[in-house]
Amino acid sequence: MEHSIAFIGYGGMAVWHHNLIQEKLPELTVRGAYDIRPEIREDIRKKGLYAYETAEELLADGSVDLVIIAVPNNFHKDYSIACMRAGKNVICEKPVTMCAAELEEVIAVSRETGKVFTVHQNRRWDRDYRIVREVLEKGTIGAPYFIETRVQGSRGSMHGWRGYRENGGGMLLDWGVHLLDQLLDMIPSKVVSVAAHLESVFSGEVDDNVKVFLKFENNVSALLEFSTNCFINHPRWHVSCTEGTMVVEDWECNGRIVKLAEDAEKMAWADDIVYTAAGPTRTMAPRPAHTQQVLELPDLRPDVSDYYRNVIGAIEKTQELIVKPEQCLRVMRLIDLLFAVNEQGGSATCRI
Amino acid sequence: MEHSIAFIGYGGMAVWHHNLIQEKLPELTVRGAYDIRPEIREDIRKKGLYAYETAEELLADGSVDLVIIAVPNNFHKDYSIACMRAGKNVICEKPVTMCAAELEEVIAVSRETGKVFTVHQNRRWDRDYRIVREVLEKGTIGAPYFIETRVQGSRGSMHGWRGYRENGGGMLLDWGVHLLDQLLDMIPSKVVSVAAHLESVFSGEVDDNVKVFLKFENNVSALLEFSTNCFINHPRWHVSCTEGTMVVEDWECNGRIVKLAEDAEKMAWADDIVYTAAGPTRTMAPRPAHTQQVLELPDLRPDVSDYYRNVIGAIEKTQELIVKPEQCLRVMRLIDLLFAVNEQGGSATCRI
Repeated sequence: MEHSIAFIGYGGMAVWHHNLIQEKLPELTVRGAYDIRPEIREDIRKKGLYAYETAEELLADGSVDLVIIAVPNNFHKDYSIACMRAGKNVICEKPVTMCAAELEEVIAVSRETGKVFTVHQNRRWDRDYRIVREVLEKGTIGAPYFIETRVQGSRGSMHGWRGYRENGGGMLLDWGVHLLDQLLDMIPSKVVSVAAHLESVFSGEVDDNVKVFLKFENNVSALLEFSTNCFINHPRWHVSCTEGTMVVEDWECNGRIVKLAEDAEKMAWADDIVYTAAGPTRTMAPRPAHTQQVLELPDLRPDVSDYYRNVIGAIEKTQELIVKPEQCLRVMRLIDLLFAVNEQGGSATCRI
Repeated sequence: MEHSIAFIGYGGMAVWHHNLIQEKLPELTVRGAYDIRPEIREDIRKKGLYAYETAEELLADGSVDLVIIAVPNNFHKDYSIACMRAGKNVICEKPVTMCAAELEEVIAVSRETGKVFTVHQNRRWDRDYRIVREVLEKGTIGAPYFIETRVQGSRGSMHGWRGYRENGGGMLLDWGVHLLDQLLDMIPSKVVSVAAHLESVFSGEVDDNVKVFLKFENNVSALLEFSTNCFINHPRWHVSCTEGTMVVEDWECNGRIVKLAEDAEKMAWADDIVYTAAGPTRTMAPRPAHTQQVLELPDLRPDVSDYYRNVIGAIEKTQELIVKPEQCLRVMRLIDLLFAVNEQGGSATCRI
């Protein structure tokens, strides 16, 4: 089956999609793009693409069966609905909508029209995430109980729509939606408690430094952080499991797994009391290296172009959609609640 | 004024008190000790101290005006009350009691008898804590908003009373009481939200790995961790302030403060988009070293023997007590709530 793609919005993310599709997915044709900015329409033409003058013109192009929507978030809902009503399948950039209620409208139209609707949760193909998920799935170090997942920057500013409330800006809707999506994809349990601290250090308009603490029904808890004013970073992931600890330091996936040595139970060690300046501690006496073993992280190389192949497979009804709108709805419900608890006290129990 | 000390309970902590008093506080006389274990009474005698055969005998010794109580936590309340009714001032080991209600009874007797009652919250004299407190007080890097404070061990066992529920064991009542006391001492604001995850990895009886997330009314939040099954440690402290980040790595107080360089606003930098395997990020592009400055941590050397001097000063009514029972009551109310929310959902708003 032939598939022809058009873009609504041709900013940085659309260009990234376009380049990746050209490089990795020659079976897909990119037909054209619409952008509200005349100078961008000129760029589109220079690239040899058709530059639609209006969104309506794009929607009326019967040769296009998949639209990638990459405009500010407050326009996602209306464009998504218009595309599906015009017979197009949709990949929508993240955050999918401004709130869960908007996404419910979109999902209703997807069901009504039978068109595929999905969200560009590309970070399910991030190496660091896949490594963590694999170690948990294999049970290499037993069952997880504490998970910490963070992105920490020190740029002290947010690009484009990220700075504006009207556009669904702020770190919770930008990086938060990725890290929450990863977490909910990985932990097969309901969220039963949330606590949130949305700080605005420099923005004055949206949250620019965020911490979230979630508890799942299966007794896993997670700390999430999305910061733009952090000058000394924690690891990207720190996971405490019953039989060991895993760290993924960075995007390059440096890191390690540490667990007890095989015969650790039989090993005594000297200096098993530490005398700090203000008192002794036995519980926190460090364990010598010979009682531990270090394992390498698995070397996974996920390919984000599989995302598009899966969307095409879902359109052709040969594959189950990986990024399901119902999963994205769950993330948006959580985000709605996090905004609310940040205003009203700081925490709440729930069942999401 | 002469002061003569006796111990109720002469285990590891009492020996630590005794050694420190002998070394640093020659103005204080240690008269004797009572311990329920006959072999320990023999040790007491060998050290040249008077070994009371019963607690009643100690209470009847009119030469003793300060008793240090260092028995399992479930006996703290009754001994504290008995000591004060017998005319003694009291230093009680931590956790001061099993719950806030018990401490309220103790405080009532302190008020009734006029005797000084305080708790051995020695970790207010920990170097790492004093360094963090000083940097926040001086506003070196602006105002704090996220604080992380942790002790992470990998011993996988807990010593003595720490393993038994009946004795008030578990990490929340052991290390938790220290880190919460430090935090509440440092942040001049009410706690308005709590979330807790008390995990029992190996104990089966008490919490052995704990995470707590608190939010204060002044918009500071704190993550606390007390773990015994962690093989890759975070820093002891990680503090995000409006103008920089501070880390104290360990008991030796390695660490640093990082903030923007003086002219950072004017500095552009290349490579300000990072292309991770699954997508680009501008917000998380790392800031080059030349746009930042690194400051050393202040070199503080607090002396925990000042704790005893302050207690003596409070007995002599020349100093205000530093570790106030009302502060300890606040910590115990928080701990009561953390145990409750861990059982009932995971979080709650409050005003403590």
